[in-house]
Amino acid sequence: MATVAAVADRRCAGLGRAQLMEAASALMTERGSIDVSIHDIARRSGVSSALIKYHFGHKDGLLLALLEKIVGDSILRLETLVQRDMPAPEKLRLHILGVLNVYYRYPYLNRLMHYLLSSSEEARRRISVNIVKPMLAAQAAILEQGKAAGAFRDVNPMSFYFHVIGASDHLFYGLFAMKYAFGIEEMGESLKQSYGEDLVRTILNGIAAKPG
Amino acid sequence: MATVAAVADRRCAGLGRAQLMEAASALMTERGSIDVSIHDIARRSGVSSALIKYHFGHKDGLLLALLEKIVGDSILRLETLVQRDMPAPEKLRLHILGVLNVYYRYPYLNRLMHYLLSSSEEARRRISVNIVKPMLAAQAAILEQGKAAGAFRDVNPMSFYFHVIGASDHLFYGLFAMKYAFGIEEMGESLKQSYGEDLVRTILNGIAAKPG
Repeated sequence: MATVAAVADRRCAGLGRAQLMEAASALMTERGSIDVSIHDIARRSGVSSALIKYHFGHKDGLLLALLEKIVGDSILRLETLVQRDMPAPEKLRLHILGVLNVYYRYPYLNRLMHYLLSSSEEARRRISVNIVKPMLAAQAAILEQGKAAGAFRDVNPMSFYFHVIGASDHLFYGLFAMKYAFGIEEMGESLKQSYGEDLVRTILNGIAAKPG
Repeated sequence: MATVAAVADRRCAGLGRAQLMEAASALMTERGSIDVSIHDIARRSGVSSALIKYHFGHKDGLLLALLEKIVGDSILRLETLVQRDMPAPEKLRLHILGVLNVYYRYPYLNRLMHYLLSSSEEARRRISVNIVKPMLAAQAAILEQGKAAGAFRDVNPMSFYFHVIGASDHLFYGLFAMKYAFGIEEMGESLKQSYGEDLVRTILNGIAAKPG
């Protein structure tokens, strides 16, 4: 049986972890940049920077854990969606709008993912196994359901994954260029919404067994 | 009238410019990384590193000029395609496959563009004006032609731009994750080809006036 002290230790340790991740997330959101130092994160969280090393090994370990937390929560919601009693096209619509919502809520998400993918073999392995694989599996299950119901034609799940995630991700990368190219100063709820509707319509028509 | 010496000077200067850009391109391709130094570029090109400052101001200026050269050539081909006597769906098919070909030929292209977009306001302005705007205008002209001919439904050109470029770009970013997620070691001609066919089919069906 755990002692009171051991339980308290674990709680404190867990709390430090969450606080550090929240501080990193808040700083990246405020700055519009993933360029945050260990020192900044420690100061913002009120947690000693030594604990970053203790919990995560190094700053990239903390950033990777934060990415896995954000996208992991989103994958759990997607896996619940897959199990629901609902037509496959409606599931895909909710999934695509959900992906856009996650990018919208965490404006640093795509830069963080791209940075981590190029940072180390370990990051590539963890992102592949913990993010790409389960997301692709959930999408493949929805595509299979839609095909069995006669709603979708045969679609290659890997192509579908890159198509949907790329088209969602790029709106938020492309924002860098929006001011000059389109006179749009910042991403708002209504732009995200109208882009989402356009994307859903084109993709659902595009994979329909009998489009229309 | 220009003296012989002045003409020779301009020629030598132009040659140095092209050599420096070619050296940077070759190094980034070989290394699979955009992490190249001024020293490396100078050594590879056989041109003094002082000329980088002379021609481009700084290394990011050289990288931006290289990006504008690669994508500029591609935009010229797209603008020629727009003028051709050809049905709009066929033009879009060639355009999308062409975008994938450029990413395939210059494997560092997306990392370079994303890096430069986040590097400075001047880079964002130049990429917007010299790359995003003309590409969007050419796509909008094809969409308009297709709509007038009854082939396409009404499509928002900005949504279309982010959709097509994002879906094309992401295949090459996603490659980082392919080894672990899909057991694919590297991008080959056949993967690019089959992804291109899937993407073209979904998008053309997706925007068809009478899909099918």
